Amino acid sequence: MKKIAIVLFNEVEVLDFAGPFEVFSVTGRRAIGQPLDVFTIAEHSRIAARNNLIITPTFTFHNHPTPDVFLIPGGGGYHSDSTPFGSRREMHNPVMLHWIKSHAEKAELILSVCTGALILARTGLLDGLEATTHFLAVNTLRELAPQTRVATEKRFTDNGRIITSAGVSAGIDMAFHVVEKLQGKEVALETASYMQYDYWK
Amino acid sequence: MKKIAIVLFNEVEVLDFAGPFEVFSVTGRRAIGQPLDVFTIAEHSRIAARNNLIITPTFTFHNHPTPDVFLIPGGGGYHSDSTPFGSRREMHNPVMLHWIKSHAEKAELILSVCTGALILARTGLLDGLEATTHFLAVNTLRELAPQTRVATEKRFTDNGRIITSAGVSAGIDMAFHVVEKLQGKEVALETASYMQYDYWK
Repeated sequence: MKKIAIVLFNEVEVLDFAGPFEVFSVTGRRAIGQPLDVFTIAEHSRIAARNNLIITPTFTFHNHPTPDVFLIPGGGGYHSDSTPFGSRREMHNPVMLHWIKSHAEKAELILSVCTGALILARTGLLDGLEATTHFLAVNTLRELAPQTRVATEKRFTDNGRIITSAGVSAGIDMAFHVVEKLQGKEVALETASYMQYDYWK
Repeated sequence: MKKIAIVLFNEVEVLDFAGPFEVFSVTGRRAIGQPLDVFTIAEHSRIAARNNLIITPTFTFHNHPTPDVFLIPGGGGYHSDSTPFGSRREMHNPVMLHWIKSHAEKAELILSVCTGALILARTGLLDGLEATTHFLAVNTLRELAPQTRVATEKRFTDNGRIITSAGVSAGIDMAFHVVEKLQGKEVALETASYMQYDYWK
């Protein structure tokens, strides 16, 4: 089974990771398609997602199978004293940036949701590509990645190996696009139908 | 702040709870609307959601604030040896049924997503009402609740105090409907816009 790693960090936006986690988890579990091996992974062994949803990741950065596909979600911002949290902290976290760079070389697909694109941008992976992010982070992405075309009008951008999506719920559409890319339109439609996601046609 | 309890159990479908959790968590956190106090709660202190997403609930049934609103998600089915899991186990769990019945008396709103409706049906709360569930569980709901009109054509049904939604992703739409009901159309639209959920108009 293809290995799909959903990367977590403190203050990650819940739907950013839970939407694609759901899509990939239910793909290929009925009459058609191939099941995927979906797991969560983080630097630390206890994650407090947004609004204090406490998650124990399946693996940490020190102990995990090599992913075929990995996803960087977003979320976070700045506290009133300017301390960054969530993606705004992770985009300056050398451990996160190193993990992404080293696994990006081998991965078949690299995905971001929402402000996860800011973290990818800091690794240089978005240079020369078309990317999108949460609508409130468009200017930040432009500043971080001047060699990236920021597609504000798209729900997701597909550069072949690197796929980015707009804010929060757009990650769900991006995940169906990835299922279609990996296993074809019929499997993506069947997965959307199972999830009663009437918006994916 | 209004207290919104998201009830969890083993094998709960991830998007069933994570979609509404996200919607309620981000409501009223910007220029308009009132924030909500959203938390997870379960019988046990460690929950393995579908595909082994491990969650530590904020509270257990033995120690939690009284919710103004509570949500019963779905998920689950039967193993090959006919052992029920997820909602199909919880619909026969006296602890779960007792918790629902005792908190239903005081709650302002009672919500279900997907096969969470099967659990609500077993408490008698859906008798005489219109309800919906995952499309694959429609016949089961009809058998469990012969005095309930099962609205297979609707994404959610609103009976005033008891609101049910169809499968998995329909819980997101139902949650926006609840935000609109509690705080008005403008707040629901602003929340959907923040989440880039273009499908809620």
